[in-house]
Amino acid sequence: MTGPRFTPLSASLPATVPFVGPETQERLTGRAFRARLGANESLFGPSPKAIAAMERAAKDAWMYGDPEVHNLRAALAAHHGVTPAHIVVGEGIDGLLGYLLRLLVGPGDAVVTSAGAYPTFNFHVAGFGGTLFRVPYAGDHEDPHALLAKAAEVGAKLVYFANPDNPMGSWHGAAAVEAMVAAVPEGCVLLLDEAYCDLAPAGTVPVIAADDPRVIRMRTFSKGYGLAGLRVGYAIGAPGLIGAFDKVRNHFGLGRVAQAGALAALADQDWLGSVKMHVEAGRGAIARIATENGLVPLPSATNFVTVDCGQDGDHARAVLAGLVTRGVFVRMPGVAPLDRCIRISVGGPAEMEVLAAVLPEVLTELLAAG
Amino acid sequence: MTGPRFTPLSASLPATVPFVGPETQERLTGRAFRARLGANESLFGPSPKAIAAMERAAKDAWMYGDPEVHNLRAALAAHHGVTPAHIVVGEGIDGLLGYLLRLLVGPGDAVVTSAGAYPTFNFHVAGFGGTLFRVPYAGDHEDPHALLAKAAEVGAKLVYFANPDNPMGSWHGAAAVEAMVAAVPEGCVLLLDEAYCDLAPAGTVPVIAADDPRVIRMRTFSKGYGLAGLRVGYAIGAPGLIGAFDKVRNHFGLGRVAQAGALAALADQDWLGSVKMHVEAGRGAIARIATENGLVPLPSATNFVTVDCGQDGDHARAVLAGLVTRGVFVRMPGVAPLDRCIRISVGGPAEMEVLAAVLPEVLTELLAAG
Repeated sequence: MTGPRFTPLSASLPATVPFVGPETQERLTGRAFRARLGANESLFGPSPKAIAAMERAAKDAWMYGDPEVHNLRAALAAHHGVTPAHIVVGEGIDGLLGYLLRLLVGPGDAVVTSAGAYPTFNFHVAGFGGTLFRVPYAGDHEDPHALLAKAAEVGAKLVYFANPDNPMGSWHGAAAVEAMVAAVPEGCVLLLDEAYCDLAPAGTVPVIAADDPRVIRMRTFSKGYGLAGLRVGYAIGAPGLIGAFDKVRNHFGLGRVAQAGALAALADQDWLGSVKMHVEAGRGAIARIATENGLVPLPSATNFVTVDCGQDGDHARAVLAGLVTRGVFVRMPGVAPLDRCIRISVGGPAEMEVLAAVLPEVLTELLAAG
Repeated sequence: MTGPRFTPLSASLPATVPFVGPETQERLTGRAFRARLGANESLFGPSPKAIAAMERAAKDAWMYGDPEVHNLRAALAAHHGVTPAHIVVGEGIDGLLGYLLRLLVGPGDAVVTSAGAYPTFNFHVAGFGGTLFRVPYAGDHEDPHALLAKAAEVGAKLVYFANPDNPMGSWHGAAAVEAMVAAVPEGCVLLLDEAYCDLAPAGTVPVIAADDPRVIRMRTFSKGYGLAGLRVGYAIGAPGLIGAFDKVRNHFGLGRVAQAGALAALADQDWLGSVKMHVEAGRGAIARIATENGLVPLPSATNFVTVDCGQDGDHARAVLAGLVTRGVFVRMPGVAPLDRCIRISVGGPAEMEVLAAVLPEVLTELLAAG
């Protein structure tokens, strides 16, 4: 008897994937992390009103969620000053990225991103057979000009741009992004990943006409709203592109608990405001700890701080390994020269205390070994 | 400025899709349904232990769910006597169907199902460009021989078979399914959708060797476990096929609340047993109501009863419209001759009372009009 006949594309995809959660590391070591600062989750949690809404929805979980996600889309439309036809909600930005690639990119189609930017985007490009072109960061920032020049050169169907950026935490002001939108090459769509924009300084979020067919924005409840474990993201764009998601999406993919939690979270903008203040304070705390240890914190518009360890990737990987071994879950960029840095999510006072205690131990040990 | 350049396949897909939830109908009429009996949800709800687990997990929703879904996969493996490498968990069976089609089926590849069987499967076949062949039901049962004969004839990569069946509620015994597995043509995979098997009589679930590469089984927490709104399904199969899902799935797609709820639901087999008893009683109640009204209830191994309205599809559609208009949400098969029937999910006493009151009104009105 023979096995399944995979498509040539799926047969060609790598069997190992880059998604290793902290739980996997905890199982390997047999110890729970003391500080969970590696996945840019919001340690300040979701709004108590969102928690209450999820608790209330739990007993109703026997009912499928509304496949049109009507109430949440209506609320998001009102929040953003667009119509529900401009909004599609999906299983996190990750899920929406998969759908978008499926809609636009087939074998050999050109796509552009930055070398070292969001790996899950690259996973989906490869998954649909796209050809990915990477341009370097410019001074720890994604480089709008290089991205668009490469997109024009290779006739890209899609160009990925995160603002603020992950993994560097850097950002461009609204005017720069607006200029980028205006310069998108014919037939190319700008995918503007704004996962962290809720935590960015005023003046970061561009004004983009709701019906502009050249751009699709992605937002999430995973960062500022503190609902990473609920899996709710959304995209804002022209109805022609947004409506096409209905051709391919998992229509009942947004559960009842998820819809209820996200709706309540959106309604509690005061909570988001307080999280933003905690995050600003937390960025300051990480920066102080880094500086006290002779490392250089990079400016950040996100809920993490990327810290320059001052040497090459091998050194930063050793610092990261030392932190992880001591129970501090952190991650780092995967590509040089960004990989001279480690990336530390903002935590509360308890986590910052752990970091402050552990980081000097790690650096001292490396100095002694080095 | 131009818009997005869709792939030829996605551009060719229909913009309208068959997913209309009861909430959409409620918004159109401005009235809530009195009895929600159309989506084969479990009106007996999830286990109170699952509800408690979801409530506990709600405050932890700031953390991503484990991308390996380790604990739930381990528990499922123990439950089924296989290893975690034989199990993939996804965003409902619907989500897993999408991944499976993506792995196996590209433009022009042949796939076989029954005319009138699960429409979401067909949605995914079309979505990946497959060529779908349909064979008729035989006496309100899916027809294993016809399915396999067609699969052999067209060189199908995949053949869909639900046991018990939706929308007819019929089933084959384990031996018939085991014989079907033994006869799967070379290079074809049998997709055995067992969404309703938790509610079926003893002797329905076949024994299939864990490493058999010819079959993949799909199960769900949406039916017997009463967690449709949580979106957790899983597939059981040989590790070669199951492992391939990692190439394409949304690795963080299973949220923390969903994993916690499903794990607690699985652990409460007593609850599942009590639901099964309620469902059996409910099938009896629907059968009585149907019979009292001169209609013919079909035997069912599921949490719904398909009721033969005794005439053609137009008549059944009129009966369905009458029920819906009076606040009873039900659905019906979409293809003749199955569409002489309507499909009524099992409810509790309150819903059965509504059905008993409304059905004679509808039939009397149709008789008067007819």
